[in-house]
Amino acid sequence: MRVVIVAAGPAEDIPSLQPFMEEKPVVIAVDGGVTVLAQQGLAFDLAIGDFDSLGYKPEGAIIHPAEKDETDLELALRYVSQHYEATEVLVFGATGGRLDMTLQNVYLLKQFPLVRLMTKREEIRFLQQGQYDIKADQYHYLSFIPLVPTRLTLQRVKYPLTQHDVPVGGSLTVSNEWTNQGPAKVTVHTGEVIALRSLSDH
Amino acid sequence: MRVVIVAAGPAEDIPSLQPFMEEKPVVIAVDGGVTVLAQQGLAFDLAIGDFDSLGYKPEGAIIHPAEKDETDLELALRYVSQHYEATEVLVFGATGGRLDMTLQNVYLLKQFPLVRLMTKREEIRFLQQGQYDIKADQYHYLSFIPLVPTRLTLQRVKYPLTQHDVPVGGSLTVSNEWTNQGPAKVTVHTGEVIALRSLSDH
Repeated sequence: MRVVIVAAGPAEDIPSLQPFMEEKPVVIAVDGGVTVLAQQGLAFDLAIGDFDSLGYKPEGAIIHPAEKDETDLELALRYVSQHYEATEVLVFGATGGRLDMTLQNVYLLKQFPLVRLMTKREEIRFLQQGQYDIKADQYHYLSFIPLVPTRLTLQRVKYPLTQHDVPVGGSLTVSNEWTNQGPAKVTVHTGEVIALRSLSDH
Repeated sequence: MRVVIVAAGPAEDIPSLQPFMEEKPVVIAVDGGVTVLAQQGLAFDLAIGDFDSLGYKPEGAIIHPAEKDETDLELALRYVSQHYEATEVLVFGATGGRLDMTLQNVYLLKQFPLVRLMTKREEIRFLQQGQYDIKADQYHYLSFIPLVPTRLTLQRVKYPLTQHDVPVGGSLTVSNEWTNQGPAKVTVHTGEVIALRSLSDH
């Protein structure tokens, strides 16, 4: 089951949501995400937030106080993990506003590794130890940002690595690309990384 | 001595640079940063990059090949640390484009803790163990994103903390605010955090 969560990030960073609605996902609006969905002519199954900036409380919404220790998105992700058997959670509108919120939301992936943050140009996910096949789909670049010192093997990419130690803060694993041999094969031997697929700059 | 580095991030994320030029800093253009400076009618002392997208090599530039293991910004920061006695390094144009590059550049701060990334709305710095006074200046929000499990004390802020353990991926330390008692007093007892000052949303 797919869950689509829409938060209140800037509209210019949010793609058309219609293609993600075809599998009839559960749709959750986080606070101002109600407006984002309305602008795209889409309905939500559930709304979560304090709705301070919205100016009204959507019918049936789960209301949280404005001053709290967790963000609305974090509350929404916790709700999803408690109430749904999700196999895929796509989050829109969680990037592109204040950079502290964007970073915060990227780190949230560590708590919820099923989740992918979606922008108009990128898909962002968290990889812990394990093996992964990552397809190119429409994307051009494949980047890995280690959160801790990490040992990586990258196969079927333009710049392969074998059991390579990648420090935090280096640039070696940014802007890799697929070959035409199919999905990239990624092994995180130790450590944890953020993996990003990005569209071409051109 | 202040060093100002200008990279090629989207123009809409780069503030007017003139106010930062008053102390006659060393000005370094990183690749397309040459264009950003030219658009603001400003000169550079040094240019570093591969200049592939610029279409010409600026006179006296330090040229690097396009395919390399380090980003142009990383090379520029290394050059600065080797050639200048900088007390302050401000980097513009390192955020707001591809999110993998933005994240990469935030992590670069770990290697170069003197550096601050500047956007039109934020200032981003890296704090390791130690005590810091952080002024409000024109900013409204003060956020801390732990990169590893961190113990923090925050004083003179709206939501103070005392020797508090802050996990990676939580939201507790996002969107704090100053009181009117002067600079926030921040103690990183153990761990490391990204500290961000942000303008108000309004």
